[in-house]
This record gives sequence, C-alpha cells and structure tokens, in this order.
Amino acid sequence: MDEEEVNRPLVLVHRPPNFHFPFRHRLATQFNLFDPLDSPDSTRSSLLCRHAHNIRVLLCVYSTPVFSDLLSLLPALELIVGSTVGVDHINLPKCRRRGITVTNVGVAFSEDVADLAVGLLIDVLRKISAGDRFLRASSWAKTGDYALGSKLGGKRVGMGKIGSEVVKRLEAFGCIISYNSKRKKSAIPFPYYPDVYELAVNSDVLVVCCALTEETHHIINKDVMTALGKEGVIINVGCGALIDEKEMVKLLVCGEIGGVGLDVFENEPHVPKELFQLDKVVLSPHCAVATPECFDALEELIVFNLKAFFANKPLWSMVNLE
Amino acid sequence: MDEEEVNRPLVLVHRPPNFHFPFRHRLATQFNLFDPLDSPDSTRSSLLCRHAHNIRVLLCVYSTPVFSDLLSLLPALELIVGSTVGVDHINLPKCRRRGITVTNVGVAFSEDVADLAVGLLIDVLRKISAGDRFLRASSWAKTGDYALGSKLGGKRVGMGKIGSEVVKRLEAFGCIISYNSKRKKSAIPFPYYPDVYELAVNSDVLVVCCALTEETHHIINKDVMTALGKEGVIINVGCGALIDEKEMVKLLVCGEIGGVGLDVFENEPHVPKELFQLDKVVLSPHCAVATPECFDALEELIVFNLKAFFANKPLWSMVNLE
Repeated sequence: MDEEEVNRPLVLVHRPPNFHFPFRHRLATQFNLFDPLDSPDSTRSSLLCRHAHNIRVLLCVYSTPVFSDLLSLLPALELIVGSTVGVDHINLPKCRRRGITVTNVGVAFSEDVADLAVGLLIDVLRKISAGDRFLRASSWAKTGDYALGSKLGGKRVGMGKIGSEVVKRLEAFGCIISYNSKRKKSAIPFPYYPDVYELAVNSDVLVVCCALTEETHHIINKDVMTALGKEGVIINVGCGALIDEKEMVKLLVCGEIGGVGLDVFENEPHVPKELFQLDKVVLSPHCAVATPECFDALEELIVFNLKAFFANKPLWSMVNLE
Repeated sequence: MDEEEVNRPLVLVHRPPNFHFPFRHRLATQFNLFDPLDSPDSTRSSLLCRHAHNIRVLLCVYSTPVFSDLLSLLPALELIVGSTVGVDHINLPKCRRRGITVTNVGVAFSEDVADLAVGLLIDVLRKISAGDRFLRASSWAKTGDYALGSKLGGKRVGMGKIGSEVVKRLEAFGCIISYNSKRKKSAIPFPYYPDVYELAVNSDVLVVCCALTEETHHIINKDVMTALGKEGVIINVGCGALIDEKEMVKLLVCGEIGGVGLDVFENEPHVPKELFQLDKVVLSPHCAVATPECFDALEELIVFNLKAFFANKPLWSMVNLE
C-alpha cells in the first residue's frame, strides 16, 4: 500500500459473507476500504478491534444487521451509509442516542419503485397479466371477448406513506390521492387520515410503500382489508410483512377484496400457492428496483454520501431517527 | 306511437345484424329511432326509401360499413354519429364532398386507451407479466433472482400520432416525447419527425395509436422496426394492421427488436403462436376500451352529439375530413 492509498479516508465495509457489490473496485480507488471478511476468520476480531477507534464511517452492504454490540465496538462511528431503503436491520435507537447519522438509498430507488407500483396497479385494474395469460392459452378464439377491466381515472388511492414519485404518476392518470402517516404533513396538499382503517374506508386502492418497523408490521390487517372492500385493490411495493398475508389470501379467495399487486411477500421466495389460481392477483418477484439504471443511481448515491461526509458537505437521503 | 313520440327527431340506426347496443332504450326515449333491421328482410329497402328524404342523422353502431350506395340513398344526411375511434368503415371522401359531418368517440376512449398503452409499456420494460408467469411457475425459489428490467424515465418515446392523454402520463414518468404525423402541429411542443423511420431512429419506444387508413397500413414496417433497434419497444393500441405483423414476429424471434406490447393484431382473434414463447412480449385481447367507465363515456358522448345536433349546438369529437 503506497502513501496515497494509506491517506484515503477509512471506510468499514459491513457485508454478508459471499456477497460482493459491483462498485467495490470504484470505491477502493477513493477510499481505504477495511473489510474484515477479507481476513481469515481467526484474525477478524482482533483486526477490527485494532482499527475500531479510527472508524468514522460504516458502509452497510445489503441488509447486514448492525446490532448494538457492533456499534459498541466502534466508539468513533459518525455515519452509517446504508444500501437499502428499509433500515430495520440497523439498531436505530442506539444510533439516535449516539448521534450517528444513517443514510438509506430511498432517493435512488423512488422512481423505479413508483414505476412498478403504477405498473402493478394498471395491471390489476386492467387485467393485463391475466389477459396475456388468456391469449397465451389460446382462449381468445375459443371463448370470445375478455373480461372488463376498471378505469384508473377517478379511483381514490390511499397511500400508506406519501411517495412523491408515485403521486406524480397517479395524478397524471386522474387518481384522487389521500395518505396516512404518523403525523399530518403541512407541505402535502392531500387529505390526511391518522388511521389506516379510515384511509381504507375512503379509498378504492391502497398503495403500501412504508418501511417495516414494529409499528407497521401487519399494518394492513383483516379489518383494514375488509374496510377497503370487495372492489378494493392493494399494491405492495414496501415489504411483505406490512400485510397480514395469511388473512389477505383468505379474503382474496373468498372475494372480500378485489385484487392485489404484490412485489414483496412475507416469506420470500415463498409465495402462497392459492394466489396462483387467481386472475385478480399480479405477482412480481421483488424487482421494484431491479433495473440497471437503479443500480447506477444507488452506486452514485453511496459514493456521493461517502465523499460528502469526508468533505464536510451535506448528505442525501438521511433517515429521520426522531 | 303517440304524438310526442312521432315528434321526436328521427335517427337512422345502422348496425350489424344480431348486434344490440345497451343504451338503445335510453335513446328511444329521446329520439325516433328508425332501425331497418327491426323490419322483415322483404320490406326493409322500401321502408328505407320511404323515409330516406327525412333522415338527417345516421347512428353508426360498431364498424358497420357506410358505403357510397347507402350515402346516395340519403339525400338529406347531415351527420354520421360513429361509435368507434377508427372510421375507416365510412366512406369519408364522399362525406367530405357532401358536407356530411362525422363524429367518432375518440374523446370518450382516450383516457382508457392511454392507461392501457402506459400499462403495456411498463409491463414490457419492467417484465411484469413475465415476472408473474415466473412466480406462478414456482420458479423463484428454484432459480433465484429474476431478470433485470429497464427504467421508464429518460426513455425517448416516439408517438405515431400525438395523444395528449398518453403524453400526460408518460411525462410523469420522465419520458421524452417526440411525434410523427402528416403535418407539424404548432400547438404541440415536442420534436416533430415528418418520417416514421426518422422517428424510430431517434426513439427507444414507439407508441402506435393512429387510425388505420390506406396511408398508415403497415406504417411500422421492417425498416422502421430495424431502425428502432435491438432494445427498442413497440406498443400498439391503434390497429393491428398498422404493423407488418409477419415481419414483427421474425424480428422479435431473432432479437432484432427488444419487445412489444400489443392490444391489437392483424387477424383477431388470431395471435401468432411464435409470440407465446417470448417473455419480451405482452399480449392483450383488444381491451383498451373495455371498462364500464369507458362504455358509459361512449354512451354519454353519443347522446350528447345527437342532442346537440338537433339543438344546433356544437358537436364533440368531430373527425377531420380534410
């Protein structure tokens, strides 16, 4: 290692074993990456302890848990740069107490997630995947006209959390937006419901895109789904466990909700088999952010935040720890 | 028939045999509907001839041909109220010469068609139907991560004809619009290409939504598709014969174009079987306007135009016969 390399800012890489991220090489030209998994198992802890007091930044690759004990090991830690949207794998209360900043990559992902959310919604309402299946089964010539869909315009869409990119798109289709969140946000011009149940009562569609926390686990429960009603549609691009999946399957099978478009599931890659028989269901293999453009944006955002931190410049996409 | 009924304005109903339209009853309360198909075959011609000089308005149900000989029979005809978007089943040159106004229902259909066009585009780019198929085949747990899609934002979308509802939606996704039509339209702020080939060269996506005429038959030919390129996507919500389907199938099979989303086909309900094997293809059974909301809007538009005509008020959705 030459002098220039030694003088690069130190970044602790925290990643799952056997998981490599494609822009490591690019980062290594600008930062002194310290990745304990590069060293043999036997020397890992002592190595980490030796460098711990110098580590100001941790790059958390994928959803690698950042538990209390790891944070305790790192007295100088100031920043955790996450590479996911959800950060429930990080001990946020301890970060708050310690004054450690956490960034996620919501900004890099929001457009692609919004595209998929809207795509799933059009698909459920206009039966696109089911229509495609209908044609591939050569049923058109045999059975004639296909089922009617339902128009997007005029649908009352309740957002589980306001996502400006989703809203921008849905407004262009003439949808009517309202939202739920912990607190009413004065900057948001749409009707606010403090309670998800009330949001469901007043919506034709629920778009679920909030982060998974203890509070939001199964936030879409049987009561909420029943309140949404027999024509109601749920789109989930957030996290599988935001919906009580077992109840959802029952309600779908007996026709108590109108349809769902799901990019996420409670127990991935397991998908409840009952859903495979239903045309009112559109299933997507957790690919809301699976575009090359999205991966590029993720890389740019992480590099930006690492450089900004060491240059004392403002960071992007900081997680609100309040 | 009482006096009030006789005094209602006379409207000639021109429909296919065995095709009934659901709002006939509603129309019958406001207009004196003269439907030759209600009478026995033997008396039909003489009945029509007897009333012909009084007929100022013809309601053309579905794509029933309005040939020159029918127009010649109706010397007093001033208006043909169509119930479709395309009006290539009507002898338009003769209408122009005779000064007969023709209305279509483009206005009633444009939102639903735009929704489906955008839905098909998201589906092709983000592989929604293919992903749904992947999950229903229980492949996720077996083969792991699914294929990458492609982001909508930044895609250069060439419109075969400017459709303001499509444009409004695509702009919300960050797409970059340009268009082709016979003439540059000063009110439209997007780049204009007088030639479809040039439009394809400068586009990532072509959205085909123009009317079928002699000039637009196979307007998307092999050269245009090749110009669009290996990553290029075509969405057709217009009419099957706008695309040279045989060439399109060949180019898709050998990977010379990136994908297609088709609501219409050259020989419906026949769909080329080669397409059934391709994940880059999304097939839809001609259902761009198949929503109850759309049918309601169609009915409202037709009733509006019939009433407006007899009240000497301006009509909606007039076909430009120039």
